Amino acid sequence: MISVVILGSGNVALHLAKAWQANQRVSVEAVWVRNPHKKADFENYTYKVFSELNALPTAEVYLLAVSDCAIAEVSRQVPTGAGLVVHTSGATDISALYPHMRSGVFYPLQSFSKKRVLLYSDIPVMLETAHERDREKLITLAEAFSGKYFWANSAERLHYHLAATIVNNFSNHFFALADRHLQTQGLDFKRLTPLIAETARKIDFLAPKEAQTGPAIRHDQITIDKHLQALSDPQLRELYRTLTDSIQRFYEEL
Amino acid sequence: MISVVILGSGNVALHLAKAWQANQRVSVEAVWVRNPHKKADFENYTYKVFSELNALPTAEVYLLAVSDCAIAEVSRQVPTGAGLVVHTSGATDISALYPHMRSGVFYPLQSFSKKRVLLYSDIPVMLETAHERDREKLITLAEAFSGKYFWANSAERLHYHLAATIVNNFSNHFFALADRHLQTQGLDFKRLTPLIAETARKIDFLAPKEAQTGPAIRHDQITIDKHLQALSDPQLRELYRTLTDSIQRFYEEL
Repeated sequence: MISVVILGSGNVALHLAKAWQANQRVSVEAVWVRNPHKKADFENYTYKVFSELNALPTAEVYLLAVSDCAIAEVSRQVPTGAGLVVHTSGATDISALYPHMRSGVFYPLQSFSKKRVLLYSDIPVMLETAHERDREKLITLAEAFSGKYFWANSAERLHYHLAATIVNNFSNHFFALADRHLQTQGLDFKRLTPLIAETARKIDFLAPKEAQTGPAIRHDQITIDKHLQALSDPQLRELYRTLTDSIQRFYEEL
Repeated sequence: MISVVILGSGNVALHLAKAWQANQRVSVEAVWVRNPHKKADFENYTYKVFSELNALPTAEVYLLAVSDCAIAEVSRQVPTGAGLVVHTSGATDISALYPHMRSGVFYPLQSFSKKRVLLYSDIPVMLETAHERDREKLITLAEAFSGKYFWANSAERLHYHLAATIVNNFSNHFFALADRHLQTQGLDFKRLTPLIAETARKIDFLAPKEAQTGPAIRHDQITIDKHLQALSDPQLRELYRTLTDSIQRFYEEL
């Protein structure tokens, strides 16, 4: 049984507290919640919800699930030598936990929204520790969350975080722009849901560069011109041109 | 029982022939295949595979599943008055079937690859006919394919086709670029599969503009700068900047 104190009250903190509370191998001793309005969110998932950092309960692992810019500040509030101090950020170096000698990273590679119920078993967790002897602890925490984990150093993690931003944030932005365009025409974005599901499923079977279809890769200028004419939003028209060029350039370089 | 002749040998022709062959309400009388090497693909799904357009078998529906630029030419090979002439293109007006008076469109809103086994029941088909009396025929064909269909005129269909291009082609291009970036670092794109699946699933529950996460919408310039520094590919670095700006502009305008 590993004892953990979670510091933070965002989506990652909440999802981890929920998953670990349901597991025999992890005990969530306490959750530090700076904003008193958020205390109620955590009461079912831990023994104690507190908001004063100077009264930190004892635990083997202090898990910081705070925003990137707060990691250094909050980690300095944990007494050195208290235990293993871990952050959950994709884009932050493990060295941000200095001066803690026993430091680590527990980064679930997923996009968390509070309202979404996620299948945790699908989520790969990227792990890193400063010292080999702390590896077992992080493995136990990962197994109690999702069962899927892999090791990566801070530089590798940043590349995965960057790739995650590209595939998730940029795709979703195009969903939002397509939705806005269809709304201006009185049409229904929901019609595209099966296509979007297939776009994601396809890459389980094909490398993305093999899965590319559409007018850009076919150099079908007639369709491209019809699309550009149908676009009333100058922002989206410019992006359409940029992406069409980029697709064509990508395959010329292959 | 509706008799159909399919003209074309691409992915749409193949998926439709497969689905209809398995259904009691549609009889695929023949498939016209211009390229003799592709004849074998269709032999299990119809009575006759032929390559001479001047020997067109009789049928109630002539379904053109050819590339957009071949629609006008192939449709002129069908004798006028022979039956209902239908194309399967998202971006082509029904008027491309002129001089056929009985014309229609059967456009499955999905991305077809030959190697992929698709769940046809998920695919919405967009239907259009020049004459109301031909509607029942297209409904039967749609029900024998997927069960999901809706009516849209040529202008509306073009907007859906444009939106489909945006959500499918552009997302997939970002998957390909992220894959290429990770490969330069010796890292594994497959790690992102669960995140991509969740990106698609999320919009079943949230409007895409509500589902947006990441450094751009948070105006997290520290992470954005780390990402730009980690990008060695100038094409992807430029796209990263463009998309980040676009996300930020989208939410300023709300």
